[in-house]
Amino acid sequence: MKHVVIIGGGFGGLWATRALARANLKITLVDRTNHHLFQPLLYQVATAGLSPADIAAPLRHILRRQKNVTVRLDEVTSIDKSQRQVIMRDGTLRYDYLIVAAGAAHAYFGHDHWAKHAPGLKTLDDALGMRATMLRAFEAAEREPDVDVAKSWLRFAVVGAGPTGVELAGTLAEIARHTLRREFRNIDPTRAEVLLIEAGPRVLAGMDPGLSASALKQLRKLGVSVRLNAPVQAIDAESITLPGETLPCRTVWWAAGVAASPLGKVLCENTDRAGRVPVERDLSLPGHPEIFVIGDLATLAHHGVSVPGVAPAAKQMGNHAAAMIRRRLAGNVATPFRYRDYGSFATIGRMAAVADLAGIKLRGVVAWWLWLAAHVIFLIGFRNRLVVLVNWASSYFTYQRHARIVSR
Amino acid sequence: MKHVVIIGGGFGGLWATRALARANLKITLVDRTNHHLFQPLLYQVATAGLSPADIAAPLRHILRRQKNVTVRLDEVTSIDKSQRQVIMRDGTLRYDYLIVAAGAAHAYFGHDHWAKHAPGLKTLDDALGMRATMLRAFEAAEREPDVDVAKSWLRFAVVGAGPTGVELAGTLAEIARHTLRREFRNIDPTRAEVLLIEAGPRVLAGMDPGLSASALKQLRKLGVSVRLNAPVQAIDAESITLPGETLPCRTVWWAAGVAASPLGKVLCENTDRAGRVPVERDLSLPGHPEIFVIGDLATLAHHGVSVPGVAPAAKQMGNHAAAMIRRRLAGNVATPFRYRDYGSFATIGRMAAVADLAGIKLRGVVAWWLWLAAHVIFLIGFRNRLVVLVNWASSYFTYQRHARIVSR
Repeated sequence: MKHVVIIGGGFGGLWATRALARANLKITLVDRTNHHLFQPLLYQVATAGLSPADIAAPLRHILRRQKNVTVRLDEVTSIDKSQRQVIMRDGTLRYDYLIVAAGAAHAYFGHDHWAKHAPGLKTLDDALGMRATMLRAFEAAEREPDVDVAKSWLRFAVVGAGPTGVELAGTLAEIARHTLRREFRNIDPTRAEVLLIEAGPRVLAGMDPGLSASALKQLRKLGVSVRLNAPVQAIDAESITLPGETLPCRTVWWAAGVAASPLGKVLCENTDRAGRVPVERDLSLPGHPEIFVIGDLATLAHHGVSVPGVAPAAKQMGNHAAAMIRRRLAGNVATPFRYRDYGSFATIGRMAAVADLAGIKLRGVVAWWLWLAAHVIFLIGFRNRLVVLVNWASSYFTYQRHARIVSR
Repeated sequence: MKHVVIIGGGFGGLWATRALARANLKITLVDRTNHHLFQPLLYQVATAGLSPADIAAPLRHILRRQKNVTVRLDEVTSIDKSQRQVIMRDGTLRYDYLIVAAGAAHAYFGHDHWAKHAPGLKTLDDALGMRATMLRAFEAAEREPDVDVAKSWLRFAVVGAGPTGVELAGTLAEIARHTLRREFRNIDPTRAEVLLIEAGPRVLAGMDPGLSASALKQLRKLGVSVRLNAPVQAIDAESITLPGETLPCRTVWWAAGVAASPLGKVLCENTDRAGRVPVERDLSLPGHPEIFVIGDLATLAHHGVSVPGVAPAAKQMGNHAAAMIRRRLAGNVATPFRYRDYGSFATIGRMAAVADLAGIKLRGVVAWWLWLAAHVIFLIGFRNRLVVLVNWASSYFTYQRHARIVSR
């Protein structure tokens, strides 16, 4: 029986695995964590609204009934294309077909030393780290006798005004203005300053300019200070420097750049600037019809096809790679991947969002309710959906965020 | 206005703080974490049934309406009794009255090198560490080619058959036999071996012998191998040694001993074997009527009074210390602390528990339902109660445990 190895249990890898459920194949899904992560809600973990278990489910559990799959917790370190082997920390796997869906991490555009002071958001560990620094900043301000230092603890900067940056900044503003109000004795959390810093001329540059303008208005209404055309010049432990000013600031979050997994470089030499692998129209690696590269790790830009780095695109690519393997087993030829764009959302805060659904543009309350419904429906597993709803309903009415936990 | 400093936001410290809500005092509550922890359910976090936020609530949030309290996130390193000062990592506080409720950690009875291989359960970090080692053990067994090594990954040992040890062993057996069944391809999790190792002659030695016998029977029915009269001789990364046998075993959890906080030694020289401070009948430190020591850090044994290290005792002591401060402010004399024992529970697993409620002895299903009701009622905060109920109801019907998350 042919052996398919799938690297990565995100949207691309998991959807590919499921799409091969009825194929007469042996499948091994390798991930370095034990869970599938619902990444669109990761910012809620970073901002203490949800717990890790609310947006993650064990891959083994999701796939327990799919008997042709073995799930393996391990980290892929290399791929030997000539021997058709995947090399992991704790062993190797021989494959007949390989699907690489290893995703992406943050990029600092040559400023890797900023990483320490301005963490990005890709994993549950990243989110828990952000949550701890945010909560500790308010605690440090509360016990700080020096007023200027306290003020620098109460300034939060989010770099990059894409969907993640907008979500983080909007939620931070809400936490400072509502959640923590009245809980401190020496500081007034409502006077915290949340900066959203963007190098380009508008927020949500990937969306329609009208929606960008609406998002900007909604952000300002929530109390976020938006700085446009402001490329970051420097970041250290105590300040952030923009063109013409250095602001004392102790908490900086990075939402400005994405770099594909280092496995991209293992697969081919001509990765693009973001480390993505240029693939054939059927998503296979040029010269290797047995290897498919999907999700954030792949690019079709050289074919003039633009596929955004979002969950629906990864799922569609996972389905397509699986279909190509089934076709090949049946002796049929490959077909090109076509991205179907059903629209996009960006949430900003309580009752604040924008949406572009196949040309229908929505903003504010309506967009927000649609965003909420879509995300609850897509969360994997009944339990998660119900608990997330309970958490959200309770947050909505009380402005509380239940996961405000800092350990030592 | 007099200043009361309270060290520790556990049951003792939090109840003392609340009992001083209407007193004309300034109160500072210092804790090294930002939350109150519902410790009786900590084993549920260690065994992936609940998330940290389900059993913890920010102290600031709990006390937001009590205007005479300042909550401070800091770690107390020393106490200067002559200057009446508490010394912390980030500052000092002068007090007129001091309540020390710093709790306890685990003790290895002179075998501190076991700590690395056999972690204990006191904090959320401990619980998350245990959860990760448990989940990783099954993953390691799944990918291990050597059958004997795989077997050692599937042997779990819990040392100490007090309430925590019994809860951990019972839940581990349930996870292996039900939760993980059918999710692995190379191993059969139901063949995992859970050992409960006790140096003394019976489990739950603090309870009635009839209940101990019932608990033993219920543990065996759940599939736990109980070893009585088996003091541990040695623990290393790959094995545990009991009298007469060395068992290959990769996961050992410690529930055998408790040592009071090192602040005990700072307060007095004659702490007992467990590091607890012998206090006066009114819970004050001998020679220092302005200092009270409560909870797991205090002992009244030298007065012939036995107070168990449980949450209700800590709450009662917190209330008493607060009452003593109020009496002193009003010019009244101190009164002795009296422990009211309303009974005790020990849960073992699904539908398995024992209870001794003021002499009425219950076992099995009835004890379990009472345990469940009592713990849900006592959980702080409406949201937690509801989410915990949803989680439990869903676990109950599906045997699933939602917090099965391992990060890298």
